[in-house]
Amino acid sequence: MLTTLIDFETAASKQLPDDIRAYLNGGAEAERSVAENRAAFGRIGLLPKLLADCGHGHTRTTILGVEAAHPVMVAPMAFQRLFDPQGETATAMAAAAQEAVMVLSCQTSVLPEDIADIPGRRWIQLYMQADHDATMSLVTRAASCGASALVVTLDAPINGLRDREVAAGFAVDGDVRPVMLDALPHPPRPQLEAGQSVVFDGMMVFAPKWPDLERLIADSPLPVIVKGCLRAQDAVRLMGIGVAGIIVSNHGGRVLDTTPAPITRLADIVKAAEGAVPVFVDGGIRRGSDVFKALALGAEAVLVGRPIMHGLAVDGARGASQVLRRLRDELAVTMALCGCATVADITSDLLTEFT
Amino acid sequence: MLTTLIDFETAASKQLPDDIRAYLNGGAEAERSVAENRAAFGRIGLLPKLLADCGHGHTRTTILGVEAAHPVMVAPMAFQRLFDPQGETATAMAAAAQEAVMVLSCQTSVLPEDIADIPGRRWIQLYMQADHDATMSLVTRAASCGASALVVTLDAPINGLRDREVAAGFAVDGDVRPVMLDALPHPPRPQLEAGQSVVFDGMMVFAPKWPDLERLIADSPLPVIVKGCLRAQDAVRLMGIGVAGIIVSNHGGRVLDTTPAPITRLADIVKAAEGAVPVFVDGGIRRGSDVFKALALGAEAVLVGRPIMHGLAVDGARGASQVLRRLRDELAVTMALCGCATVADITSDLLTEFT
Amino acid sequence: MLTTLIDFETAASKQLPDDIRAYLNGGAEAERSVAENRAAFGRIGLLPKLLADCGHGHTRTTILGVEAAHPVMVAPMAFQRLFDPQGETATAMAAAAQEAVMVLSCQTSVLPEDIADIPGRRWIQLYMQADHDATMSLVTRAASCGASALVVTLDAPINGLRDREVAAGFAVDGDVRPVMLDALPHPPRPQLEAGQSVVFDGMMVFAPKWPDLERLIADSPLPVIVKGCLRAQDAVRLMGIGVAGIIVSNHGGRVLDTTPAPITRLADIVKAAEGAVPVFVDGGIRRGSDVFKALALGAEAVLVGRPIMHGLAVDGARGASQVLRRLRDELAVTMALCGCATVADITSDLLTEFT
Amino acid sequence: MLTTLIDFETAASKQLPDDIRAYLNGGAEAERSVAENRAAFGRIGLLPKLLADCGHGHTRTTILGVEAAHPVMVAPMAFQRLFDPQGETATAMAAAAQEAVMVLSCQTSVLPEDIADIPGRRWIQLYMQADHDATMSLVTRAASCGASALVVTLDAPINGLRDREVAAGFAVDGDVRPVMLDALPHPPRPQLEAGQSVVFDGMMVFAPKWPDLERLIADSPLPVIVKGCLRAQDAVRLMGIGVAGIIVSNHGGRVLDTTPAPITRLADIVKAAEGAVPVFVDGGIRRGSDVFKALALGAEAVLVGRPIMHGLAVDGARGASQVLRRLRDELAVTMALCGCATVADITSDLLTEFT
Repeated sequence: MLTTLIDFETAASKQLPDDIRAYLNGGAEAERSVAENRAAFGRIGLLPKLLADCGHGHTRTTILGVEAAHPVMVAPMAFQRLFDPQGETATAMAAAAQEAVMVLSCQTSVLPEDIADIPGRRWIQLYMQADHDATMSLVTRAASCGASALVVTLDAPINGLRDREVAAGFAVDGDVRPVMLDALPHPPRPQLEAGQSVVFDGMMVFAPKWPDLERLIADSPLPVIVKGCLRAQDAVRLMGIGVAGIIVSNHGGRVLDTTPAPITRLADIVKAAEGAVPVFVDGGIRRGSDVFKALALGAEAVLVGRPIMHGLAVDGARGASQVLRRLRDELAVTMALCGCATVADITSDLLTEFT
Repeated sequence: MLTTLIDFETAASKQLPDDIRAYLNGGAEAERSVAENRAAFGRIGLLPKLLADCGHGHTRTTILGVEAAHPVMVAPMAFQRLFDPQGETATAMAAAAQEAVMVLSCQTSVLPEDIADIPGRRWIQLYMQADHDATMSLVTRAASCGASALVVTLDAPINGLRDREVAAGFAVDGDVRPVMLDALPHPPRPQLEAGQSVVFDGMMVFAPKWPDLERLIADSPLPVIVKGCLRAQDAVRLMGIGVAGIIVSNHGGRVLDTTPAPITRLADIVKAAEGAVPVFVDGGIRRGSDVFKALALGAEAVLVGRPIMHGLAVDGARGASQVLRRLRDELAVTMALCGCATVADITSDLLTEFT
Repeated sequence: MLTTLIDFETAASKQLPDDIRAYLNGGAEAERSVAENRAAFGRIGLLPKLLADCGHGHTRTTILGVEAAHPVMVAPMAFQRLFDPQGETATAMAAAAQEAVMVLSCQTSVLPEDIADIPGRRWIQLYMQADHDATMSLVTRAASCGASALVVTLDAPINGLRDREVAAGFAVDGDVRPVMLDALPHPPRPQLEAGQSVVFDGMMVFAPKWPDLERLIADSPLPVIVKGCLRAQDAVRLMGIGVAGIIVSNHGGRVLDTTPAPITRLADIVKAAEGAVPVFVDGGIRRGSDVFKALALGAEAVLVGRPIMHGLAVDGARGASQVLRRLRDELAVTMALCGCATVADITSDLLTEFT
Repeated sequence: MLTTLIDFETAASKQLPDDIRAYLNGGAEAERSVAENRAAFGRIGLLPKLLADCGHGHTRTTILGVEAAHPVMVAPMAFQRLFDPQGETATAMAAAAQEAVMVLSCQTSVLPEDIADIPGRRWIQLYMQADHDATMSLVTRAASCGASALVVTLDAPINGLRDREVAAGFAVDGDVRPVMLDALPHPPRPQLEAGQSVVFDGMMVFAPKWPDLERLIADSPLPVIVKGCLRAQDAVRLMGIGVAGIIVSNHGGRVLDTTPAPITRLADIVKAAEGAVPVFVDGGIRRGSDVFKALALGAEAVLVGRPIMHGLAVDGARGASQVLRRLRDELAVTMALCGCATVADITSDLLTEFT
């Protein structure tokens, strides 16, 4: 019987082919950040309040000003058909069933139009393209498919060094592809001269910079949330140009190894935000108590990634739904045991150092 | 030959069926608190005093104002017939043989009347019922069976997430049941509407709150000791409403994972108590030196749980008695080696950081 | 080829019978102190000085005012014939060959008269007996056999809880016995009444106390060094009554578990001693660099125990000699690499935190 | 497919004979410094800056005032023909191909004249000889073979205790020899008297001292960089006598165990240098992110040793070149992901504590 997110992870990891498992579970270089993202939650202890009245409490909250059933969101993840034939369709159904806000990746392996009819609140993630018009075409299309916010990923201007993935020979080919990007013009291919760097003279020339983000925010009909911030100074500057929210993230440890666990950076960035914009966090969440700790440190909501794919791999939409259900239930249990009737009661004085 | 509590644990764990072993040894979620409860003692070092006169010393002390042969108590544990056919009867005999105060769980699998004739000092543990009269009926019955104090468990208003237990398929059924609770009226069964939460709209509605505890203290003919406190603020408030003692506990790590080891919270709560009420501690005690460290940090006595059941599982009343005997003996040896003739000599300057 | 002390330990541990290996390598309870004694050295780093002139340097030093070839002493250990048929005789030959001061245990399995003719400087260790005259008879006999100082063990008024040894069924019987103690009157056997404690009403009644040590110091023709001190306050009091030296020790972790590693207590006690008496240290020394670190923290010399027995077990006197030779050589290499021509150059600014 | 330096290490370690693998990978005593050199990088976290303009960035820098393509140098290593028949010739070709400054060991197994024609910038490492003229003959020869700087190793006046190497029976004999030293006069062989020490009365008499280094600096036509400094005080004194640069190093953990990881000492020595001379670092570098961290802490460049030999062992010059290429590429990726267009942008505020 699969109960916890760990159970789903174990089961999915057993059944996935080596290369896809490496892609899903792996991360950058020695995967220190992958491990630390989870371990960091284990170093935070809980100090429950006794005898509090939690009758008729609930997990409801507001996310970006809109009421939500709970603060657990589906993180953007590419190529979900790697894990289930229905891919993002199944995830959208699971999110709908569990009333979770879903962030669709722009590297979706299912067309956004094909899931537009599935009920539920959705945002869309995108990488800024070298060409502003290309970026805007994604935004427009996302909006027309019902996305109510953009999540712009900033921490991966180029791919990380994914040693495990490379060693396993993972490649995106064949049937599962980023179909939403087909409509885009081919990205510019720089002609490198001898001695020039693929990184610096190629990819980084076209990587997004501050003015690009400012322009996107100005032109976007949707609020722009940024993902991948770990520095308080960046958070302040991002707020200054008008972002609608900040997701503290190290991309699940998939891009740059030894970036700190987002949960360890959250409090600083919440402080820097001074309540002006909501702050979110992802990375390493496997328990309702992890969600609780993130909220106690000031997150408006959390994003969960790999565990949803574990559910998807094991049992499609139903598996993904079970994973989300379990997190919701564990959060409720943790709240009740800590004496919190609502998420507003989840304050940092309920935390202590563990070990 | 079984000598130490670890020996009994190893032997019991080998012979118990999987589900019962999971129930006994397991805890909440990843069992970080289960492990930490024990590990925390290992981080406390001992700094013995040389050449002290310990001739004719002893382990005698007072517990709640009454003299006791030693400061090791039997913690409340449910369903002891899972481990031995005689269950709580055998434990009571062991406690009597070793002059240990025993706390009988209200989830006893043997009727309290059936052990009332066994000599020895006993307290009774109870969970406050949704109905005050039901709670009082338990109190009255406990008193009539000779209990001289109540231990009210506060840290488990609902069950924790016991992953290991669930995975092992443990269930309370068949022969071993909480027989003392048979006499109670059926607990209220809330009719949940669609979208309501079993946790918040069900169980937590009936969970005890501060006024309930105040009423119990007012009406109880027995002194009320509370179990499960980890916060100094809660301790102060509990003293304010008249509790007779406080047990610092995280329920053996069985309810909420990453709650800190009680021994790490003890000094704070002893300080908050300012000597007004006695403070006890449980969780992770496996050595006489652990008992010694708890006393040095200000505990009046300690409660020991799982090890008693390990003794019970291995050799019934005799096994449980051997476990208690070993702890008493180890405590005496530790006292002698540290230069303490009496428990009053066990002061915090004998402790140091270890590693 | 056996080179390092670890090599000898591995080889000896393989060839010794289970019970004797448990006796030699084991310690109290969970053997945390046994492990920590060694681990603590690994947390001390070395910060060498470059280009220092170490030509014609040496390891010579003075121990208790008398010149010694080097600061590595043989710690007192009981029953050495368990490890080699010649026992203490072989150890004395090894010590003589390597110019090491040897401390003979009063629980020697060879008569002190039988090794009196072996050259070399020797001290004798003793436990104070319940009867002062008995103690003095040991002192007189030791002096007549050439011992030039007494080492009085203070940290073991009763035996520790040696779980590993008990589990392995180790017992001192048969051929290997504490032959020097045969001449003593039988120790008093207290008649315990019901309810009395073997520890408190038996052994601790006869355990040495401050006045007993004062009397011994007053009556002894030999200087009295005490072994087993971990507290600075005890050190001050011991100096006040006239001890000639202090050995910081936790008895190799064999008596009371979670006592701190002696090397971590050394600096405090050296500071308390204010140069009035020499301070020694034992416990966990396996490398010349460990000796170096002890000297840097203020030790006049170090005592090494188990490794000598590993040498003895592997190859008798020659093995024990090789172990001592290796330590001497490693110390010289460490000194040269750190830029220290003499032990006086080994100062604490050569140390740093490691990891 | 071999991609990372770890891949090359694993492959090389599999195929090398036991004794040569022990020589290459091993270190002093328990190899705590060997392990810590690598582990220390894992405790440094990266805190990337978002949206920085890195287009047309590069890894170019200056080393000792001369432009270099990147800051990764080949550390001096003896006897490279142990790993590949072409030995230092292959390494020189790899370094040339990857535009890396190579430091040739004076214990080269290929004559410096035989690689003088291979293009690329090279320095030569040497141990100061007992005879100043002998040292100067090495310097002159090195200069005539195109070396543009001297690297004088100061941290190994005598060999360290290489337990693993000794246990594996490694010896330099037969075909692979320090051929450049053949031309030197035989080193003095002290006649030791009984009781004299090989270390102190032999080797250390001839070991270099401060005046020897001053004389070398005065006489050398090449700038003198020193290797093996871990103390800020030594750095200050070295600058005072005119060294041209300082390499913070513990000799890869091969000489004295429990010396701290050089990366942990770097900032202190950079601070002591006050910009007057460049500071380099080696030890434990296995990732481009490690190079990045060293630069962020103030290193002008880094030296990499064992990984180059792993490359050499696996695939000769091509393998060594691949290792250097990978480090360059990883450094570029790390820079881009951290928002650094040039090495001047790599500042310490990009670092944070990890775990």
